[in-house]
Amino acid sequence: MPNPVSVQSINPKVLKCEYAVRGEIVILAQRLQEELKAKPGSLPFDEILYCNIGNPQSLGQLPITFFREVLALCDHPAILDKAEAQGLFSADSIKRAWQILDQIPGRATGAYSHSQGIKGLRDTIAAGIEARDGFPANPNDLFLTDGASPAVHMMMQLLIGSEKDGLLCPIPQYPLYSASIALHGGSLVPYYLDEETGWGLEVSELKKQLKEARSKGITVKALVVINPGNPTGQVLAEENQRAIVEFCKQEGLVLLADEVYQENVYVPEKKFHSFKKVARSMGYGDNDLCLVSFQSVSKGYHGECGKRGGYMEVTGFSPEVREQIYKLASVNLCSNISGQILASLVMSPPKVGDESYESYSAEKDGILKSLARRAKTLEDAFKSLEGITCNKAEGAMYLFPRIKLPEKAIKTAEAAKTAPDLFYCRRLLNATGVVVVPGSGFGQVPGTWHFRCTILPQEDKIPAIVSRLTAFHKSFMDEYRN
Amino acid sequence: MPNPVSVQSINPKVLKCEYAVRGEIVILAQRLQEELKAKPGSLPFDEILYCNIGNPQSLGQLPITFFREVLALCDHPAILDKAEAQGLFSADSIKRAWQILDQIPGRATGAYSHSQGIKGLRDTIAAGIEARDGFPANPNDLFLTDGASPAVHMMMQLLIGSEKDGLLCPIPQYPLYSASIALHGGSLVPYYLDEETGWGLEVSELKKQLKEARSKGITVKALVVINPGNPTGQVLAEENQRAIVEFCKQEGLVLLADEVYQENVYVPEKKFHSFKKVARSMGYGDNDLCLVSFQSVSKGYHGECGKRGGYMEVTGFSPEVREQIYKLASVNLCSNISGQILASLVMSPPKVGDESYESYSAEKDGILKSLARRAKTLEDAFKSLEGITCNKAEGAMYLFPRIKLPEKAIKTAEAAKTAPDLFYCRRLLNATGVVVVPGSGFGQVPGTWHFRCTILPQEDKIPAIVSRLTAFHKSFMDEYRN
Repeated sequence: MPNPVSVQSINPKVLKCEYAVRGEIVILAQRLQEELKAKPGSLPFDEILYCNIGNPQSLGQLPITFFREVLALCDHPAILDKAEAQGLFSADSIKRAWQILDQIPGRATGAYSHSQGIKGLRDTIAAGIEARDGFPANPNDLFLTDGASPAVHMMMQLLIGSEKDGLLCPIPQYPLYSASIALHGGSLVPYYLDEETGWGLEVSELKKQLKEARSKGITVKALVVINPGNPTGQVLAEENQRAIVEFCKQEGLVLLADEVYQENVYVPEKKFHSFKKVARSMGYGDNDLCLVSFQSVSKGYHGECGKRGGYMEVTGFSPEVREQIYKLASVNLCSNISGQILASLVMSPPKVGDESYESYSAEKDGILKSLARRAKTLEDAFKSLEGITCNKAEGAMYLFPRIKLPEKAIKTAEAAKTAPDLFYCRRLLNATGVVVVPGSGFGQVPGTWHFRCTILPQEDKIPAIVSRLTAFHKSFMDEYRN
Repeated sequence: MPNPVSVQSINPKVLKCEYAVRGEIVILAQRLQEELKAKPGSLPFDEILYCNIGNPQSLGQLPITFFREVLALCDHPAILDKAEAQGLFSADSIKRAWQILDQIPGRATGAYSHSQGIKGLRDTIAAGIEARDGFPANPNDLFLTDGASPAVHMMMQLLIGSEKDGLLCPIPQYPLYSASIALHGGSLVPYYLDEETGWGLEVSELKKQLKEARSKGITVKALVVINPGNPTGQVLAEENQRAIVEFCKQEGLVLLADEVYQENVYVPEKKFHSFKKVARSMGYGDNDLCLVSFQSVSKGYHGECGKRGGYMEVTGFSPEVREQIYKLASVNLCSNISGQILASLVMSPPKVGDESYESYSAEKDGILKSLARRAKTLEDAFKSLEGITCNKAEGAMYLFPRIKLPEKAIKTAEAAKTAPDLFYCRRLLNATGVVVVPGSGFGQVPGTWHFRCTILPQEDKIPAIVSRLTAFHKSFMDEYRN
């Protein structure tokens, strides 16, 4: 009897799924890192710089003190009453920990919670959403999840029944969407962001692609919008968002709003507006639009990726469909409680007058201002290079420069059966230790080549990155210039 | 344009999925709890006793102190160096926290880790498995997950391509398996555990069901075994395990071994043996058998359900298929770091000579001995009731008594289009506040009726539960006796 498990016999949807953010380049980087450890000095660089993923604390960003104080106290509530705790923890972190414990039935931070998350924490988050938007939020609409990814999967699982079910997704897109659609066997209906207008999202393009998909017999269920954009870094204008809401309402599409970068806006002329706020300000309520907003503790100024906290706010669905979403959440019991607590903290940080307010504000502002400076420095550096154009990083954590590759480089790559942008990124990694993700992992207009580079390395590393990138790029262009 | 999201238009696999552990009875219990809160004294009981789910800390079980000390210190490493920390934390928890931090690149407990989990923690877990089994374990075979459930889903996603792909599952089974198979569109191939022999697992039954499934054109990919059993509480004999391993090898089936209750064995004549140890002791290695062992921090003596930690040990797959499993893990980035740390602690608790060893041992033994007493008291209580027979709880956290329901009760239930065991459980809940799960949620031989009841309420509550159960059952039988 042959072994039944082979690449030929497993689920073909798994084979089809791709996730470039942790794909080939990253596996190569991990190998190089091990080489560096085993034989220091054997490579032309002495450390790997992971610019492939929005993972701030892996690059030295420190956590927000108040958040970690509260998490530690909730992990070990036995110390809350002890005198020594006063010397180690701020007064408001102790107070907040008590508040949170009182919201948890039996103060049991080690128990499974309600499938949607602890009710008291959802109340806090709902209040935070209200304060942000100026419109009511219902704690029963919130589903707390282990980061935003499982929430996205849950909605894909709900909406996709076959390859005839489609979702409109931006190109370029964060590949979680293409991966999840592939895993659930649906159809990704692409709409292109317009690089010329700073990755603008045009409703005319949405209409065109929707019409084309429908003409092929695809039932388009939903529109995915990532705002601020990943990998593209743009922040949508409110007027644009209104047009998108109107389009979804007219066409009966669920609006899946990836809003995990809502705190990451770096330019004074742009401001984050949640799609729920925009829809409500247009007078659209639960009966007008199915809207899901995804939020995560992994992004923002805090960047608590390892804590796997997040939520989705689900509005506009019928009670019968809501019940099915609840069932999906229940099958995994609940998300991790530390992540749930952190999600409540992120949506309700210290306020003026709290003991921690000053240190919290200083930490937050320091990080956001530094991110803005890093974005600008890297953007300028990319722009100065031959054949590279680069969008402005208005928000999120990425730049997505476009490279006009020399014909000879493209031919060399293609001869090696490698996408030209992957070829460039692999060469960059091997020469400099800088890890970026090829544009083909996110999708791009055919014949154009990009890569995604995070703005996250600590500020003291940026000059070295810029000079290494510059030197590499020059020598690459010299090598392949026709 | 109509709203596209209705129960008719969503993924039909979601509709098909059922998860009784958080199903109708639990939703009713939550409603009653709110009623009790709003109008104390309005119901014939003053609290809801959740015996539906293996959630020990929700019922008052305290966490293991050492584990929580380490988690708190890793959440807020800034306090590790402070003098006050010495007064609040044991010396070995401080030492362990440092060790763990040193295993995390950049000591960044807030960063996404390697998709399989932090390498140093996997080393610790592998060493723990080796110490348990006496056979080597490879850290690269470990995938750390947010509890065992996501690991089970991952394997289902890998193995199931269509409804022609089947998995042999015990009946009764933990409904995560039926739910996950339904969600991934595969076929559950049932094999019946034999209630007469204490829920014995007979290889002849496996062979019969495999043959029958194959005759229907089903490609059976894997065999699920839950040991210790859920909901059935039996602990497999090593000889039985050998026969199961041999069967999987002969038939080319992946063995999916749910071993999350490995610490929960209550009878001196039984001992837990991992399937990997059994297979290795038979001389079978990676080339002989695809074997996946699931473990969780939610069960055992610690019962840290809310932390969502766990792992699967994946052996015997080809490198190409392993790569696909890695990709599936990568799409969700990583499991939560606190859960990862806790998984390492559970597999490497304090040792003789460590400052915490005594308190740790006392806490652990206290819990396990109390669980054994509770299991016995509840078992005896069930057995004393008219028409009820009950298995011995050798392990896990459950009893699965069988009720011979009076004909009149069955007819009344069926007239109300309700499964008779659901009818009984609903009546029990409304009369006593005790929440148990109907056997139909786990599967049972047609025409037999059971329910699953955890052994987890704190010991001081057990007498009241027994007397409430007894009074309810008597009056129920009196009402429906023919």
